[in-house]
Amino acid sequence: MSDNGKAREAILTCAGDIKDRIGKGKRPSLKFPRRSLSNVTYDTDDGYFKLKSGRITRTLTYNTVKTFAQALRMMALSKEAIDTEEEVTKREAYYVSKNWAEARFDEQSESDTVMEDIEALFAVNREQLGFIPEEKGGEVAGELVVIDRDRTTGKKIKIDCTRFGSGAYSVPISVEELQFETDAEFVLAIETAGMFQRLNNHAFWREANCILVSLGGVPTRACRRFVRRLSEQNGMPVYAFVDGDPYGYGNIYRTLKVGSGNAAHINEFFCVPDARFLGVTPKDIETYDLPTHPLSETDVKRARDLIRNDPFFQHHKPWQRAIKKMLKMGARVEQQAFAKHSLNFVIERYLPEKLADPDGFLP
Amino acid sequence: MSDNGKAREAILTCAGDIKDRIGKGKRPSLKFPRRSLSNVTYDTDDGYFKLKSGRITRTLTYNTVKTFAQALRMMALSKEAIDTEEEVTKREAYYVSKNWAEARFDEQSESDTVMEDIEALFAVNREQLGFIPEEKGGEVAGELVVIDRDRTTGKKIKIDCTRFGSGAYSVPISVEELQFETDAEFVLAIETAGMFQRLNNHAFWREANCILVSLGGVPTRACRRFVRRLSEQNGMPVYAFVDGDPYGYGNIYRTLKVGSGNAAHINEFFCVPDARFLGVTPKDIETYDLPTHPLSETDVKRARDLIRNDPFFQHHKPWQRAIKKMLKMGARVEQQAFAKHSLNFVIERYLPEKLADPDGFLP
Repeated sequence: MSDNGKAREAILTCAGDIKDRIGKGKRPSLKFPRRSLSNVTYDTDDGYFKLKSGRITRTLTYNTVKTFAQALRMMALSKEAIDTEEEVTKREAYYVSKNWAEARFDEQSESDTVMEDIEALFAVNREQLGFIPEEKGGEVAGELVVIDRDRTTGKKIKIDCTRFGSGAYSVPISVEELQFETDAEFVLAIETAGMFQRLNNHAFWREANCILVSLGGVPTRACRRFVRRLSEQNGMPVYAFVDGDPYGYGNIYRTLKVGSGNAAHINEFFCVPDARFLGVTPKDIETYDLPTHPLSETDVKRARDLIRNDPFFQHHKPWQRAIKKMLKMGARVEQQAFAKHSLNFVIERYLPEKLADPDGFLP
Repeated sequence: MSDNGKAREAILTCAGDIKDRIGKGKRPSLKFPRRSLSNVTYDTDDGYFKLKSGRITRTLTYNTVKTFAQALRMMALSKEAIDTEEEVTKREAYYVSKNWAEARFDEQSESDTVMEDIEALFAVNREQLGFIPEEKGGEVAGELVVIDRDRTTGKKIKIDCTRFGSGAYSVPISVEELQFETDAEFVLAIETAGMFQRLNNHAFWREANCILVSLGGVPTRACRRFVRRLSEQNGMPVYAFVDGDPYGYGNIYRTLKVGSGNAAHINEFFCVPDARFLGVTPKDIETYDLPTHPLSETDVKRARDLIRNDPFFQHHKPWQRAIKKMLKMGARVEQQAFAKHSLNFVIERYLPEKLADPDGFLP
């Protein structure tokens, strides 16, 4: 059964239970996982932040009737989306509710919360419920064929990511149905659009036999899910190439690899546990004589916070050493910094030297 | 001669003049256009904001020697980029300067300013100088074949934008070399990624025989330049479909159509004078019984500012009436609002009805 099919079954079972209880004159209830950092653990075997067992029970009462009705309405919308193969953005779901009479939402933040509760309730992700985020995925170029279908004719479509010239394949918002054909050796996930463009213009993916993905800062859910499915289906490592600063380490890379704290119920689907950190590391600054910028107060605060409070960085000694080194140097470095030597130094020296020793990457 | 070739000639001529003057023991100088709103006029014939004749002369003196040297270094970098067919991001140019000894830049804002001065000096755009912005272009799907070439093999590549399934063609940062083949009737420029995804999933471009472009908010230079070249080479109208609020009208649409005030020296290349405004208009709120949000104080302030101070909205009476109507209704509307009626109301009713009468679009 497809993932969407499982979500549909779960909705029908849940709705059936509620109907039964009401039929027997009993109060129906829903048990939602508690969604907060305190209900999260870093599972080092599976390699991502997981929900612990904390649950909140919501029973239908006079006071909860509106939110209870909203949750059921949202489930019904999900079932409708799955049945008609529609995708509903969070914003659209909010507007659809305008026709739900007393159950309508006044603010999108309310409908988003209900949507996230339902994700957590069924332990599925939003895309499997037929809901999609507003934001788009990343860009892709290189040794990959994406298999999609024309949604109106149903015909299979093969998209050859070596055939976009200076352009790229733009990842759709929902990637659940995509399949992949590739002989690439790894995925290179790149922070900035500028660096992605440089590597793509020089067809770096050809000589390195890899797939380039532009993250565009902290990767969106669609982008992370795309990289995850690609990595998983093809047993391919993912190497991250981002700025050498606390934001690059703690926000971009950490989110890509193990997920985030406040959305732990979906990390299972959106993390990329096989990701490893190619650079730019504090050590690279010395090895490659790179120009740096001084750490700002915010940088220092964030870096200290990573070592002290983030379960991921707490667990990995090499990361603690790297971040302490950065604090000691008082410097951050950007992935464009290699341009000081020459524009293509990054292609001709840095990446080939680093890629010769992936075991040396940070975890 | 190619546009890049012209830029190269201009650099050589300018550098030659400076060398001659120095050879004759005279002080060289550079005359830059003054880049500010007060040096701008709305040219209604050509349809965009143009620079007036105000110029600033910078003569080489003891005090200006550093900035003078930086301008010459930046020109040399541009010539090198053109000669080697490289593209240099703004950030990279800043890092390249780290090897310019005393002429190095301390902040990227300084190198950006010098780059913009040179654009204005030669009346070319940054891309023609071999410089590219950091940010990427938009997404494209529909009845269009983009012709690019593999930058390493030189081979021509045809990119068929009907063949990407739920994905899309991601526009490269520099679009100067792209060519187009299309029989589409118009370009539909869409504000949000969510609406673009809906129209693309339903292959709206097939039934409407059009090209869909996702702007992703205020369009980047690359995205505007892409739409402009597409529209110009194929004599195709461009219809904008954005949120019905002061930001959608004044920032997204106005920038797409006539350019911006503080970068008027490049509007010539980046505006889309043939663009027209499909919706969402304040009138649509009534016609289609759409759910709205009240205007915030900022919205009201911005709307009043558009009518009073923006040369574009001052010129166009239908826009003044529309914005006054919005102020009177005290309401803004989003392009997702059609979902209230049904998810595909926008495809089945709104767009077909509007597209039946393009003469009714706002200018």
